[in-house]
Amino acid sequence: MSGETLQVYFLGTAGALPTPVRNPSCIMIRRGTDTLLFDCGEGAQQQMMRARCGFTIDAIFVSHWHADHFLGIFGLVQTMSFNGRTEPLTIYGPSWVHDFVETVKKVSRFNLKFTLDSVELEEGSWVRFEGYTITAFAASHGLPALGYVLEEDPRPGRFDREHAIELGVPAGPLFGRLQRGETVKVTKDGEEREVLPSDVMGEPRPGRKVVYTGDTRPIIPALVAYGKNADLLIHDATYDESEKARAAEFYHATAAQAGQAAAAMNARTLVLTHISSRYTDTSAHAAEAKAAFTGTIVVPDDLLMLDVPWQN
Amino acid sequence: MSGETLQVYFLGTAGALPTPVRNPSCIMIRRGTDTLLFDCGEGAQQQMMRARCGFTIDAIFVSHWHADHFLGIFGLVQTMSFNGRTEPLTIYGPSWVHDFVETVKKVSRFNLKFTLDSVELEEGSWVRFEGYTITAFAASHGLPALGYVLEEDPRPGRFDREHAIELGVPAGPLFGRLQRGETVKVTKDGEEREVLPSDVMGEPRPGRKVVYTGDTRPIIPALVAYGKNADLLIHDATYDESEKARAAEFYHATAAQAGQAAAAMNARTLVLTHISSRYTDTSAHAAEAKAAFTGTIVVPDDLLMLDVPWQN
Repeated sequence: MSGETLQVYFLGTAGALPTPVRNPSCIMIRRGTDTLLFDCGEGAQQQMMRARCGFTIDAIFVSHWHADHFLGIFGLVQTMSFNGRTEPLTIYGPSWVHDFVETVKKVSRFNLKFTLDSVELEEGSWVRFEGYTITAFAASHGLPALGYVLEEDPRPGRFDREHAIELGVPAGPLFGRLQRGETVKVTKDGEEREVLPSDVMGEPRPGRKVVYTGDTRPIIPALVAYGKNADLLIHDATYDESEKARAAEFYHATAAQAGQAAAAMNARTLVLTHISSRYTDTSAHAAEAKAAFTGTIVVPDDLLMLDVPWQN
Repeated sequence: MSGETLQVYFLGTAGALPTPVRNPSCIMIRRGTDTLLFDCGEGAQQQMMRARCGFTIDAIFVSHWHADHFLGIFGLVQTMSFNGRTEPLTIYGPSWVHDFVETVKKVSRFNLKFTLDSVELEEGSWVRFEGYTITAFAASHGLPALGYVLEEDPRPGRFDREHAIELGVPAGPLFGRLQRGETVKVTKDGEEREVLPSDVMGEPRPGRKVVYTGDTRPIIPALVAYGKNADLLIHDATYDESEKARAAEFYHATAAQAGQAAAAMNARTLVLTHISSRYTDTSAHAAEAKAAFTGTIVVPDDLLMLDVPWQN
């Protein structure tokens, strides 16, 4: 389990209006052999082609039903069907997800060859995958809107190889059995004894955690509650401080507010996204977030991929 | 009238599946101050940004309801509303256009600030604009599908300046009155006489004509009936001859069939479009069309603009 990849592709980083170089919101997370989409704006399927990250989507999580967050689903579903997909696909999202999926089926009526399901989520809902969980939390965007946390299961603690040998465990298959939680019998100084996993294994280590806010005003309490110590916080940063009033009016955040959230959560890395089309230069975003947060700050261009490494 | 521009932007030239470099079908025609779209595949709004051809769409004509021909309408409508459009917009197309427009309204329910109308067209339907007419004809694509002809009104014939002077018309304002169809009185050899427009004007000259087939099997009789002597024929050329059987099965045309149509219609220029994603090299398409058609052949990349000049 500890060898699973965790990679985040920023397929669309634009705000409500795309630009010639930024597509509407779409984030792909590949975790092990799973591929999940978080939002899927218009043109997402072409961005996947450009990023060469494949089309085998296992689930789609939509943050809210503003068009720049879901219009790409229509074409993606068409293309997956055209390419012969037969596996069912589930679309998760807040209120209106069932209506939306019915609309997709209606628009796709000529050739949809797989089952499209819908699951409505709310604050605290979670979806279990092999080795990790996606949990929804409420964002503040003036309509039902969710953020999502992807959190891996804890990993076993570190194996203390030297101490195991001291206890009489010979290097070899018994190491693996202890690491998998089994008690083993060994002979030490002519005496048979049991070695427990807890004798040689450290405390379980937390899995990696990625948090995506979707579009939102500042929601630090929710982020602290759901996303403490996140490896990666992907936060709405539609505006810089010069447009702080507009950010509040339209239920968005500034880069500085994203930085404050990252600091409060003790995140390791902050990604600023949903950049308004008015900005061609994002250096103010980065600088303003940096004033509040000492960790790594990334303002991705479209198609950037970030690998999320283990910290322990 | 004779000074009106007529320009065709190829915003999307892909077949059913887009590629990293070809967007789904979208053709913009700018005629004078009017801007019309013929089909509007996913990502069309970004292609308009990239082509710097503007967003002020006066009408949208959809050839048929396969998703690669209309999915861009959702996002385009959102963006026009976001940008403050208040003028109504009409979407024209074959059966299901009313359902489709209702779906767009439903998906756009949060912020559509202008009226979206739908008009259903069929073989022979026409829509009148200032100085030109759009006429629909039936394509053959296994579902209700239309092609469109844009045809300008005839221009007045050529003014024979020398003959007018011979008849005693002095160079000056009377020339303009004759050109506008008025009879004028002149004095020639001391005698007053009338000069009729028909004395000094040639036969009316046909306006320019652009034909777009949408997706179709070969339909030469319809093209000859509706599109004879077209300045520009934009024809389905999804496949080359190696996939002729597949073209027939899926109700598409080959480049050679497009060339045969262009020859039968006496078109001046043939544009091959809706290129299947299997081709990265379109030289076979061009060569196979050329074997059937001696006029100019263009296989546009996305964002190409063709100006349609007057021929007379």
